[in-house]
Amino acid sequence: MKNYFSSNFKLGVLGGGQLGKMLLTETQKFDIYTSILDAAKDAPCAQICNEFHVGNLLDFNTVYNFGKKVDLLTIEIEHVNIEALLKLEQEGLEIYPQPNVLQIIQHKGKQKDFFVSHNIPTSPHKRFNNLQALKKETLKYPFVWKSAQFGYDGTGVKIVKTKNDLEVLTDTECIIEELIPFKNELAVIVARNKNGEIKTYPVVEMEFHPEANQVEYVICPARISDDVALKARNIALKVAESFQHIGLLAVEMFQTADDQILVNEVAPRTHNSGHYSIEASYTSQFEQHLRSILNLPLGNTDSKVAGIMVNLVGEEGFSGDVVYENMEEILKMDGVTPHIYGKKQTRPFRKMGHVTVVNNNLAEARKIAEIVKNTIRVISK
Amino acid sequence: MKNYFSSNFKLGVLGGGQLGKMLLTETQKFDIYTSILDAAKDAPCAQICNEFHVGNLLDFNTVYNFGKKVDLLTIEIEHVNIEALLKLEQEGLEIYPQPNVLQIIQHKGKQKDFFVSHNIPTSPHKRFNNLQALKKETLKYPFVWKSAQFGYDGTGVKIVKTKNDLEVLTDTECIIEELIPFKNELAVIVARNKNGEIKTYPVVEMEFHPEANQVEYVICPARISDDVALKARNIALKVAESFQHIGLLAVEMFQTADDQILVNEVAPRTHNSGHYSIEASYTSQFEQHLRSILNLPLGNTDSKVAGIMVNLVGEEGFSGDVVYENMEEILKMDGVTPHIYGKKQTRPFRKMGHVTVVNNNLAEARKIAEIVKNTIRVISK
Repeated sequence: MKNYFSSNFKLGVLGGGQLGKMLLTETQKFDIYTSILDAAKDAPCAQICNEFHVGNLLDFNTVYNFGKKVDLLTIEIEHVNIEALLKLEQEGLEIYPQPNVLQIIQHKGKQKDFFVSHNIPTSPHKRFNNLQALKKETLKYPFVWKSAQFGYDGTGVKIVKTKNDLEVLTDTECIIEELIPFKNELAVIVARNKNGEIKTYPVVEMEFHPEANQVEYVICPARISDDVALKARNIALKVAESFQHIGLLAVEMFQTADDQILVNEVAPRTHNSGHYSIEASYTSQFEQHLRSILNLPLGNTDSKVAGIMVNLVGEEGFSGDVVYENMEEILKMDGVTPHIYGKKQTRPFRKMGHVTVVNNNLAEARKIAEIVKNTIRVISK
Repeated sequence: MKNYFSSNFKLGVLGGGQLGKMLLTETQKFDIYTSILDAAKDAPCAQICNEFHVGNLLDFNTVYNFGKKVDLLTIEIEHVNIEALLKLEQEGLEIYPQPNVLQIIQHKGKQKDFFVSHNIPTSPHKRFNNLQALKKETLKYPFVWKSAQFGYDGTGVKIVKTKNDLEVLTDTECIIEELIPFKNELAVIVARNKNGEIKTYPVVEMEFHPEANQVEYVICPARISDDVALKARNIALKVAESFQHIGLLAVEMFQTADDQILVNEVAPRTHNSGHYSIEASYTSQFEQHLRSILNLPLGNTDSKVAGIMVNLVGEEGFSGDVVYENMEEILKMDGVTPHIYGKKQTRPFRKMGHVTVVNNNLAEARKIAEIVKNTIRVISK
């Protein structure tokens, strides 16, 4: 084992947002020296890492030069310059997740093709080079349209119900998928290290607002049968093994009406659906990511208690210096932990933080989570 | 409530050691801007706080000038210049714990007198201005000698068995105490905020090495009867109330052969005996300290699981660049979390980190803790 702890070893991280910030909690705990690259000089990680560099993650030279100065490179966002990573890897740098995996996952068309060629259950899809090619196809409505690249948090995804909806789509490489009616949206985080040691976290469930069609709660454990949970974990394992992925992989899935599990998409990193693990799990997803990329033994993925996460997003109608209204009220509640990402400015729907509710009793946690959701407001001064 | 989160509010902390570092995990989580003063430019907090200042904590001007630039001041070590704090407080700065409380606690003679005058059970003591005055007294051996000021981690404390032992004592203001035979050494952490809200953590037990007379494990919950635990928590509450203390107060106690609880001494801050709380409790002691000094509602002090802490101290015979031998072995064990404080140089007995073991079953945690203790070694290259 390399000596990572209080040593000269330097971990490089591409991206300095909230995922990077929560990773820093773990590098600080282990005293691992960390250098971070992000485009924003006031990124959440800027003041609390050992070394912070400002630069464009999609620029070849910026990423390449940054990579030359670290001993191992990881990411907290997958939209980075892959050519630079491939060259760095060729020159001997360890990069996890591996550039060739990132290359597939970055591109939704390649990602879906990968699932199909590896017999990973997923909804049927077709790829198109541009909007014109899509329009030439005989289409069956409704369907799901996804931009092939650079979509995240719902951008670059649309449900197309009629021919008229085609007109508002961006003219870009894309995929379309059958719209599958599902009864649950689930996710499983898998950790795998270079030795091939692999572990899954419990299945979590995304509970949607009945009208707004927006994820309101991430619930661990998912309120599903043991059979379905086991099936979901096994499929997640298969996905990570198929990629020979090193690091954390978040596998998003649908549970259909007849209890099939279909993989929706994957994220090659720590993930919003694993934030509950900071308070609820024996090993948080951020510590586990470190363990996996550093080829350390993986930690226990079990939960100590049930956990529910509520995202804190900027309220509509408010932009400017952020204020967290009623913070004191939620701090009074049992097992409630707010995480504030450190973005000084709020905007409608901007991810500003999250709140975790833990409790021995999942139903009780769910009740408290709802009160939290209805109490705290992310507004501006 | 003041707006502490992602705001212009600036928290000042005197001391940038490991207690400060673990506090920073919480200020980062809440995005509270933190400025730290420490004498060592490579202190554990140096690179991960928002603002770091190098200076002597015992120098009036250094502490005073630092305090003028923050909105609220706290400490992670009690050996600081009190005159500066008193003046800052007079000029309107909020300082928690309060300077007058620190003044009493800093001085073991005043601390013991305070216990006596507030009917807090403690072993009988006598105060002396210097060694000469002590030697003039008719002494009953054995007894415990303590330097009145600046002792910590066992320095400044000696068991005096015979008249000859007097010759090795430092010539300084001191107290002597009856040597009480005890069956357990216990501690209770109390949190109290400005509103007067007060909570105790469960009683922890210090398990000593049978020969070396050194604390080996801090165990939560202590393996004592509910009656004794309740008595200990009530006495701890009484101590914090007597001081009208704001912030965290660690109360160290002895359980005598006949189940009396005697207060040994107190520390006005986060404490080694509360480190288990990071992994085991609903609210870690560091988050609780923040909540109490910022007059936020206090968090749940209950445990999710049993917790045992093992200190990592530099091994005898090794000095220089630190290496944590067999780290990989302990990371394989269930529920084991190392905390590395970030001191680059090890020395015999230097506190370099700690390891927490959590488990649903305390006896199982105790077994794992022993294996951890016998596996990891803090040595030099």
